[in-house]
This record gives sequence, structure tokens and C-alpha cells, in this order.
Amino acid sequence: MAVGHHRDVTVAPSAIARLREVVGDQVLTDPELLASYTTDWTGRFVGRTPAVVRPGSTAEVAGIVAVCRREGLALVPQGGNTGLVGGGVPLAGEVVLHLGRLDALGPVDEAAGQLTAGAGVTVAAVQAAARTAGWSYGVDLASRDSATVGGTVATNAGGIRVLRHGATRAQVLGVEAVLGTGSVVSHLGGLVKDNTGYDLAGLLCGSEGTLGVVTAARLRLVADLPERSVSLLAFGSTGDALAASALLRRSLPALSACELFLDQGLQLVCSTAGLRPPFTRPYAAYLLVEVADRTDPTDDLAGAVASVGRLEDAAVAGDARGQADLWRYREGHTEAINTLGPPHKLDVTLPLASLAEFVDRVPTTVAAVDPAARTWLFGHVGDGNVHVNVSGPAPDDDRVDDAVLRLVAASGGSISAEHGIGTAKRRWLHLARSSAELAAFRAVKAALDPDGVLNPNVLLPADDRRDRSDT
Amino acid sequence: MAVGHHRDVTVAPSAIARLREVVGDQVLTDPELLASYTTDWTGRFVGRTPAVVRPGSTAEVAGIVAVCRREGLALVPQGGNTGLVGGGVPLAGEVVLHLGRLDALGPVDEAAGQLTAGAGVTVAAVQAAARTAGWSYGVDLASRDSATVGGTVATNAGGIRVLRHGATRAQVLGVEAVLGTGSVVSHLGGLVKDNTGYDLAGLLCGSEGTLGVVTAARLRLVADLPERSVSLLAFGSTGDALAASALLRRSLPALSACELFLDQGLQLVCSTAGLRPPFTRPYAAYLLVEVADRTDPTDDLAGAVASVGRLEDAAVAGDARGQADLWRYREGHTEAINTLGPPHKLDVTLPLASLAEFVDRVPTTVAAVDPAARTWLFGHVGDGNVHVNVSGPAPDDDRVDDAVLRLVAASGGSISAEHGIGTAKRRWLHLARSSAELAAFRAVKAALDPDGVLNPNVLLPADDRRDRSDT
Repeated sequence: MAVGHHRDVTVAPSAIARLREVVGDQVLTDPELLASYTTDWTGRFVGRTPAVVRPGSTAEVAGIVAVCRREGLALVPQGGNTGLVGGGVPLAGEVVLHLGRLDALGPVDEAAGQLTAGAGVTVAAVQAAARTAGWSYGVDLASRDSATVGGTVATNAGGIRVLRHGATRAQVLGVEAVLGTGSVVSHLGGLVKDNTGYDLAGLLCGSEGTLGVVTAARLRLVADLPERSVSLLAFGSTGDALAASALLRRSLPALSACELFLDQGLQLVCSTAGLRPPFTRPYAAYLLVEVADRTDPTDDLAGAVASVGRLEDAAVAGDARGQADLWRYREGHTEAINTLGPPHKLDVTLPLASLAEFVDRVPTTVAAVDPAARTWLFGHVGDGNVHVNVSGPAPDDDRVDDAVLRLVAASGGSISAEHGIGTAKRRWLHLARSSAELAAFRAVKAALDPDGVLNPNVLLPADDRRDRSDT
Repeated sequence: MAVGHHRDVTVAPSAIARLREVVGDQVLTDPELLASYTTDWTGRFVGRTPAVVRPGSTAEVAGIVAVCRREGLALVPQGGNTGLVGGGVPLAGEVVLHLGRLDALGPVDEAAGQLTAGAGVTVAAVQAAARTAGWSYGVDLASRDSATVGGTVATNAGGIRVLRHGATRAQVLGVEAVLGTGSVVSHLGGLVKDNTGYDLAGLLCGSEGTLGVVTAARLRLVADLPERSVSLLAFGSTGDALAASALLRRSLPALSACELFLDQGLQLVCSTAGLRPPFTRPYAAYLLVEVADRTDPTDDLAGAVASVGRLEDAAVAGDARGQADLWRYREGHTEAINTLGPPHKLDVTLPLASLAEFVDRVPTTVAAVDPAARTWLFGHVGDGNVHVNVSGPAPDDDRVDDAVLRLVAASGGSISAEHGIGTAKRRWLHLARSSAELAAFRAVKAALDPDGVLNPNVLLPADDRRDRSDT
């Protein structure tokens, strides 16, 4: 069974019976119950499934994978269903493996700063447990109340703290997982230094459920940094803002966020949310900068800002209320853009050296394809990460996506910074990865999921050669 | 051809001719020239080889791998030959693939804090290039002048800065490598956020040359922290020292080293090196603590030390001379122990919660096997990492190794913290990894090195099942 061969799977009643032997009444087949599992939260990806299976233990996950291997069924693992690239919904009729019941959350090891969480534990629950023990979790993202440990590990989720603490892979000390072979691998001892073989945890992290189903993870915690200071800086050009970003990244060890947005986006946010603009006149580009430390970092931030060149204006917020107000200009972008209809969302990284030119060229690139489209650029530029949103083109018209992603690749960037490939981006993966790399990916996939049971329509492009030879 | 099947390879003249077609006169076969490539620096591992091949480019490495696949030859990749577990010498008659000529060192991207280095560049050269540009490299180890980028990436080398910056894997943003299939994979763009497929770089890092030959790496640099303060703390028990280590790890963000040694080791160091003891009377256990920051961290260290409980005595050094003097008590251990003959060296990690009990139990465990043996314990306890050195047993008597590694495994620890498995530890890998994990490792190995060309006698234990079925 090859990757991409599950499109028209139908499930025999006997297969459903086998699944029920593993998880009892946790096999859902009632169409009304299935609806929330077959559509992603944005509504862009709508699939269908013969069954949703909800295991309550790693052993049950292994049993389900074994049944699916025997019965020739494909599985889509699903966590909080907050992904943005269609990687967790059954777009080709797969069985949904919902991991929400794996919600055991172990105690915080206060000396080591670690905890073990089941796949179904939400990011918010990990954050809360860490905070109660005087620690913090290094990953935060807007979907924290729904996004799960299993999903964020499987996708190497990023978010707003990557600049300071790294993405999810940097937090993972080990995982328990069921491979596509049905084997259970478990390495949850939490040893920081452990050179005993291949880094399976790191390999599974970011593999988007195509190699194994992560059922639990041992996570490192980071020092809690309760003191914050936030500043909004205004510049006459994107290049000036990015030069400031590079300077601040280097001179401010306590830098915890460095976010870019542009005048057009700010105006949209202010008009849709009814906010007063931050400055008396508009500027071309803005940086929202946050520092976090154990002791009040306001002076550190002020000192660093004073050394920024070509700064047009600046607002500083020392208290929590004022900080939240400044953050609204940045965080309001998604909601404001959604008022214009569902945008095309591209999530890309550029080398710092080509980021300014990229930001300046994107609107022209989009306009050349669709003159009526409107382009919004914002994101975590401290990491080189820009979210390109385009309003206007129909959802199934991907000419703009194609043009922007080609520009990204031509500029030495990544076509997926933190959202992953899923089903939405796999036709462009060849822009980011050579045929030798794709062949290596396929070899690893075949090694750990030899029957193509796990997420066969995700990440790896359909392999035309193989499809032809099989038919 | 299976793993472990190259023990009695002899090389036909025609195969040597094929290698010469790839690299010209960079195929060494003169026995006098081969000697330095067949013995590791400690002299413990002595192999033999029909040829040393020294490619000058990634394409030549690919050509060599292709020849070896066709001719049925096994390769041992070799960097600075500073490994401690026999992973880089031809113990079973393999051809040595020496990577020293891949010594291109690219410019520092000063904005991003990154550089690209060929496999043959030394760690010291990376450090120097970083320093010249106002950055620092996050990895440092005693063998810095010989150890190479290729070797340290392939083994996920640790060293004295892991506590602050992580091991080598945490510095690697991407690699160029030749897989066992002969394919060249290259991902050197240095993008910090890049979720476009499996983490091949992380998988190759720590794979000990068994999956691919790393020919270059894109490395992140870290902020230079020139201001240091060092303190030596004395305790009445190992438990007290480790409790202090946990406290300091949590309360001192600027902590850059936290090293343990015991009274017996200190006495040996002082007597062999002619040093004056640090305090007027001996104590059971010592912590050497270093903090590093942009501004003078002496007050931070003093404040943290003041909060340490059950502290018996303390020495603080503010200037470089005094700091070096304090470090000599810790760094002198290896040389002092070597004066008693080559020790058995075990490099293990324990969970912080069981570390104190482990340290206390090791001497008894060793004495039960060999009452005449002498045990030395020291290491990077801030990471849970202890180096267990045992003087006395003959080099080929591994009963003590076996007893200590079983104690490690029973205590939930890792049998290799930072040195890797190599050939020396592979008979114990089953203590650290389940049969399901080992099966997954073998599957990945077979996927990326299907003919077992690369380091076939390293890391993975000889597969008895496979060996039997093949013969």
C-alpha cells in the first residue's frame, strides 16, 4: 500500500467490529457525532470519515494501528484540531484517531523543571501546571486552550515564544509513540544528556503524524519570567524596522517577542476593532517588542531602544493594561483580516538578509497574479518568520499561493515556518526540498510506517512514480 | 550485507583503483601513513585498515560511498579522532573516510549569528571565527583543537557549555550530508523556523556516522558573554552538593557551569599536580560554579551562593587568574587519574532525583566486582551527567563497566550522556533502549544505509537474528 492510496477507502462492518474489540464504545460512527472531527476549525478543510476512534491508552492506540494495518485502513491522528494546513482532518476518507482521552498530566519535577503530559493535554493545561510549580512552558500560541501536546509535538508548533525558547522540538526531552509498525516506543526518562542512539523524539516531532502517533511527551520547563516591558516602535520603512530587529535581537538577551506589522494592517485593525491609532501620524512599519525577565526589564528595554537608528516614534508600556493595549495592534490582525473573508494564509521564513526585500516585493508579486487581491504582512520577524495573508482570491484559487511560495523559495526561504506542510502545502514541498531529501523522507516513512497507515495524504507529495508502478 | 558483516573485508586492488578514480592520490595505503588513522588518541582502540581516503569535496564523498556500495566495502568516517568509544577507528578492517580536507569555513552572518563550516573545521576554529565577529559558539570541550565539526555533529558532542547552550544538536540549523545510499542532502539555509518535513539534520546528529556522512553544517552562534565569576563550594555530603546544584540551576539564569567532584579526586589532583588544597580542611563534596554574562555577574553569584543551604565553605574568584586556579581542581581530574594507568571511563546521566544515591553507591558496586579498583566520580552535574572513572581493572576486563552500567539503568539513567555508544558501549545499548526502539533504529538504518556501508560496527548491537539468518 503506497502513500496516497487511501482516497476511496470504505470500511467493512467487520473492520469496525475489530476496532470495537480494542476500544469498546469509543468508536463513533453516527454521522452527527462525526461532524466536529471532519472539519478543521477554520472551516477551510472539510473531510469525511467512516469512524472516529478514541483510545484511552497507548496500548489501545497500538491495538488500533494493528487493526488498521491488517484491514488496510488509513488513520488521521487528531489532537485539538487547530492546525492550519489540513493535516488533522480525514480529507480522503481516513479513520480519525482522536487522542483527546490521553489526558494524563504527571506531576512537575520541580528540581529538574520537567513534566510528562499525555497527547490529549492542552497547551494551556501544561502552562498552568508549570506555573503552579513556579516554572513556565516555553511554547505559547493563540490556540492554547484547544491545541494539544500530541498535536503540537507532531507539528513542531511554534508560536509567540520561539524567539526566546525555541519551537516545540526544543522543549521535548522524549516521547512515547506508536509507530506505523504498531510498535510502542517510549523514552520518557527526561534525561537532558542522552546519547544512546538515534533521536527518534526529534524525528517524530514535526513529522505530522506520518511516522508515529505521539501518545505522551516529556517536556522541559523554562524559568518563569514574570516581569515584562513592551514597546511599540515606528519606522519609515520595512528595512529600517528589520535593521532594528536585528540590533535588538543581539543587544537584548531578555528579548521575548519582536513582531512586525505594516501601516495598512494597523489601519485595518484600528478601523475594524475601533482602536485609536498608537501615534498621531502613520508610519510605514512597526515593531512590537517585548522583554521578559525575573526583575523589571524596563530600563534594559529603554536603553536598547535608545540605541536604535532611524526610529521615528516609540510608545512604551510598563503596566499590564498598557502592554495588552499595544499587543492588540499586533494580535488584532487575524480577526481584522477575517472580516474581509477567509484569506489565503502563507507562513514563511526568510533569511534575515533578504527579509526586507521580500516584504517589499510581495504586494507586487500578488498584484501581478490578481490585481484585486489585498496583501497583509505581519509576524514573528525576530525569527525571520512572516505571515502573508491575501484577501480576495477564491479559496480554491491557489495562483497567489504559488507565486508567493515561489518567491520565498527563490529568496532562500522556507515555505512553511511553523504551520507545517499538511495537505495544503505538499504540492509545493519540492520548492523547499530536493529530490534527494524527498527520497530520504520516503525511505524513513517506509521504514517506520511500511504499510502507509498513518496520515498517508499528509506532508509527502503524492509519489507519481510509485503510484504508476503500483497500478 | 548486514550490519556487522565487514569484519574480514579485504580490499581488491581494483577497488583501490576505483577509489583513486574519485580522489586521485588522496588514497593512502602505505602502512606507515595509516598508523595515525587506525588508533584513537587514548590508545585504547587499535584497528587496521586497507586504505585511508581523504576526499576534498562533498561530491567526492558521494563518489567514495558509491564505490564502496558497489565493491561491498565498509567505511568508518573519521574527524579529529578524539572520540572515546571507538566509533571513529577501523576496528573491523574498514576503509577510513577521513574528512579533514573539508575545511572550508564560511563568513559569519553577523545579523543572524550563524556560520557554515565544513566537516573538517575544528571546534576551535569555529570558536575563533565566532569571536572575531562578536559572537560565541555554544559548544566547547577539552579536545577543541582537534575535534571537528563533522565529528561533533555526528556524535552530538556535549562538553562544558551544555548547561547553558545545549549539546551540539541544539546548535545545528542544518547539514549537508552523504547518506548511505550515496545521495547528497543539503539544507544549509540557516532558517531558524522551518517546518518542511522530517528533521534529517537532527537525526544525523548523534547517529555516529551510521546513517550519513556529515560534510558541512550550518551552526547557530550564541551571544558572547565575556564577564565571568567562579566559585568553589564545599559540602559535607554529595546530597548537599546536589541540592545546591538544583537550587543554583533554578535561581541563577547566568549559570554556565556546575561541576561536581569529591574529596578523593581533589586529593589526587592536588598531589599529582602539586596544587595547594582550596580549603584548610577537606570536605566530602565540591561544586565548581561559573556564571557568565554581558555585565559583571559577581554580585548575582554571591547572592545565589548566600542562599545555598548546608554550605561548609566557599572560595570566590573574580579575576581570570583566580578563576583558572579554581578550574584546575576540576579539570585536573583526567590527567591525575591517567597517572594511575588507563582508567575505564563511563559517562552517564542520572535523573536529578537519583543522582546522589547513585554517586554514593558506585564505589560499593565497583568494590563488589573488583575490591582493588579505585573509583573516581566527577562531572557536569548541572546536567545530571557524571563521569565514572575506574582505575585498576585490565583494559579488557569489563565486569566493572557492566556492573556500573546496570546500576545506571536500574536508576533510570542513561548509559551514555555525551560520549555516544561507538563500539565500546553497544553491547550495553539494550539496557537503555527497548527492543522496539532498537528495531526502529535498525529500520531507519536500513532505510538510509541499505547496504550497511557506513560504520556498520558502531552504535547498533550486532543483530543475532539477522546474522543467523544470513549465514
